[in-house]
Amino acid sequence: MPSFKESISFLLNLLRWLGLLVPLAVVVGSSCALFLWMLEWVTQYRFMHPAILYGLPFAGVAVALSYYWWGGRAGGGNNLIIDEIHQPSEGVPLRMAPLVFIGTVVSHLFGASVGREGTAVQMGGSLASSFAKWFRLDKRSTSILLTAGVASGLGAVYGTPITGAVFGLEVLTLGALDYSALLPVAVTSIIADWTCHQWGIHHAVYPVTFKGLAAPGQIPFHVDAVLWVKVAIAAVAFGFASRAFAEGVYRLGPVIKKICPTPWLQPAIGGVATILLVWLLGTRDYLGLGVMAPEAGGASIVNFFSTTHYDWSWLLKLVFTVIALATGYKGGEVTPLFFIGAGLGNALAPVLGVPGDLLAGVGMVAVFGGAVNTPLACTIMGVELFGGANIVYYATGCFIAYLCSGHTGIYLSQKVGVPKV
Amino acid sequence: MPSFKESISFLLNLLRWLGLLVPLAVVVGSSCALFLWMLEWVTQYRFMHPAILYGLPFAGVAVALSYYWWGGRAGGGNNLIIDEIHQPSEGVPLRMAPLVFIGTVVSHLFGASVGREGTAVQMGGSLASSFAKWFRLDKRSTSILLTAGVASGLGAVYGTPITGAVFGLEVLTLGALDYSALLPVAVTSIIADWTCHQWGIHHAVYPVTFKGLAAPGQIPFHVDAVLWVKVAIAAVAFGFASRAFAEGVYRLGPVIKKICPTPWLQPAIGGVATILLVWLLGTRDYLGLGVMAPEAGGASIVNFFSTTHYDWSWLLKLVFTVIALATGYKGGEVTPLFFIGAGLGNALAPVLGVPGDLLAGVGMVAVFGGAVNTPLACTIMGVELFGGANIVYYATGCFIAYLCSGHTGIYLSQKVGVPKV
Repeated sequence: MPSFKESISFLLNLLRWLGLLVPLAVVVGSSCALFLWMLEWVTQYRFMHPAILYGLPFAGVAVALSYYWWGGRAGGGNNLIIDEIHQPSEGVPLRMAPLVFIGTVVSHLFGASVGREGTAVQMGGSLASSFAKWFRLDKRSTSILLTAGVASGLGAVYGTPITGAVFGLEVLTLGALDYSALLPVAVTSIIADWTCHQWGIHHAVYPVTFKGLAAPGQIPFHVDAVLWVKVAIAAVAFGFASRAFAEGVYRLGPVIKKICPTPWLQPAIGGVATILLVWLLGTRDYLGLGVMAPEAGGASIVNFFSTTHYDWSWLLKLVFTVIALATGYKGGEVTPLFFIGAGLGNALAPVLGVPGDLLAGVGMVAVFGGAVNTPLACTIMGVELFGGANIVYYATGCFIAYLCSGHTGIYLSQKVGVPKV
Repeated sequence: MPSFKESISFLLNLLRWLGLLVPLAVVVGSSCALFLWMLEWVTQYRFMHPAILYGLPFAGVAVALSYYWWGGRAGGGNNLIIDEIHQPSEGVPLRMAPLVFIGTVVSHLFGASVGREGTAVQMGGSLASSFAKWFRLDKRSTSILLTAGVASGLGAVYGTPITGAVFGLEVLTLGALDYSALLPVAVTSIIADWTCHQWGIHHAVYPVTFKGLAAPGQIPFHVDAVLWVKVAIAAVAFGFASRAFAEGVYRLGPVIKKICPTPWLQPAIGGVATILLVWLLGTRDYLGLGVMAPEAGGASIVNFFSTTHYDWSWLLKLVFTVIALATGYKGGEVTPLFFIGAGLGNALAPVLGVPGDLLAGVGMVAVFGGAVNTPLACTIMGVELFGGANIVYYATGCFIAYLCSGHTGIYLSQKVGVPKV
């Protein structure tokens, strides 16, 4: 049993950490609430004013120029934050938060096919880094606080606090997980999510009605062998979709650089290509987040959970997003990865004879888990988004996709701790 | 993209692994089914013939003698398996499986307060080790197969396959998790659990009816700040209960050795002590697994989820179990830890003003997570046993209990990868 002196020092340490983490969580949660509210607003605005898409190349160049003039090290984005957690040095500049916030909102207003988790992670990371500097924390504490910032950003923006916490620990090193920051990271993520809810933010609901073989009074879940094998086969496809996405961004980037060596001009290429694609395909479903479609019945994440069948939506979203990210639009990858995964699940469901909502759910978390190399966080995300009944299918999807997605990943600063095979 | 030759070699590798893992899973799952069926039978028999308790000292000595004569290295139990996973050497003897099976069934027939996961883990581990020897696997593959054996034993015996998989990886090293065995371990655990169900085994249902603030059409869960703080406070108590349990077993063992240096005679002390305690307290509720009580309304894990209040049941179970384990009865720690955790949750619920079923559920997984140092597996266990709605509370309970439980743990072969504080 600890001595009295030890107990006092433990209590003081606890209070010191709570004094750091609670304000950080409240600030990150509130920023995420404002961010989600703005995203909702600009998306509705874009739905009602489709012609705004023609401004996309200019908006992209304007955002890129603002980074060029004022960004400095903030342009490093997610990778800078991962680097700083591994090896705290100069810290993450505070200006990263407003820059990425405004850059992402502008990107979404004009219809770039990007996500929102990059923004949440970068806001969380840069706020945490500033806290660490103000309080002159040592390297170890700085690293924990940064991880908490990343976790709380992701937890609040998707309404999945435990996913955020496990993601924060899991994303740093491929194939390994370090527990020493577990509790501070989880506490920050839970409080940030709570704060975001207190601002009246509601997250989209993805209705997975399939519930295994559960009967009243039974355990919630009992796996069906044939269905399980089918989900495992689909998961291989999910893993290859993750891989195609990561490789796509990784390979298109240098090509764009060759065509147009001026960094702040590159978004113009992506903007023009996006406009051409919309014109060619005659649909605006692949612009922006894709959680909702501009018209009823359009391809969207929510609609992939319905009984309507969408054949190639996942591939088109992949093309739109790879172009937007490779030419420098801000926001992130995850919501487009959700779209690709849920869309591919929807497309494969009738082929394999699997309930569509179940496979859309598995695909949604598995393609994300494969691309970001966070299989456990994504299994838990399945539980937090869709409920616990189908956890065996979510885990199977995420673990197989993780194995099949290769070592590239979308975060290049991720260390390879333990190779996959 | 992989070449044709790579794909063929990948496929052959996959088939080879499936050829190993599927039979292993079926054998482990079937053994667990037989084991659970026998446990149910002997528990019912003991309920109907209470006088059998007087045979406990003799039964304990008989089991200990059988280990003394025929056990050899099998007496190393869980720790031998963890050692063999870290550093495969001579392997785990196959005789461990029947010895621990019979030893545990006999212990439960006569009323020792022990668990069942040790048996499942050891059956899984020794079967896996034999598979590895028959197929002459290299050290790395042997280690993966052993982990799969451990995971599938735990997954099948509690009906929680994903918990089993994460537990298998998490239990090896305190504070770290290695992903390279993730998929084979999960596949084995899922198939073993499926097999166990196919034999008609039903697991006990622990009814957590509390469901956060969920409303139809909302996300399944929305944390309540006051309730969350209360659960966090209870979790500190759960952590200290884990610590008291682990330290109790750790410290009582040497005392028993001093009193009685003959190893096979030690169970006699535990048996007599158990009889005296039953006589003194006038209740048989603390014998055996404790999932059900011999009389309606008695202290039991299932009843801790009801509205009845049990004050000190958790402490009495702790005393019974520490005595049984320290004097060498076979079976394991986890079901008694469930009892202690759920009982402590039940006791604290009215004091803190928390729904009793919720706190019983949190305590059940948190005390286990703290004693075995597997916070993530136990969070997932909360989801697999009680459903996903309260995952934030399960995670909070497990993470805090993990931090407060100290570095002892009940598995002494666990390496300390990353210290907790």
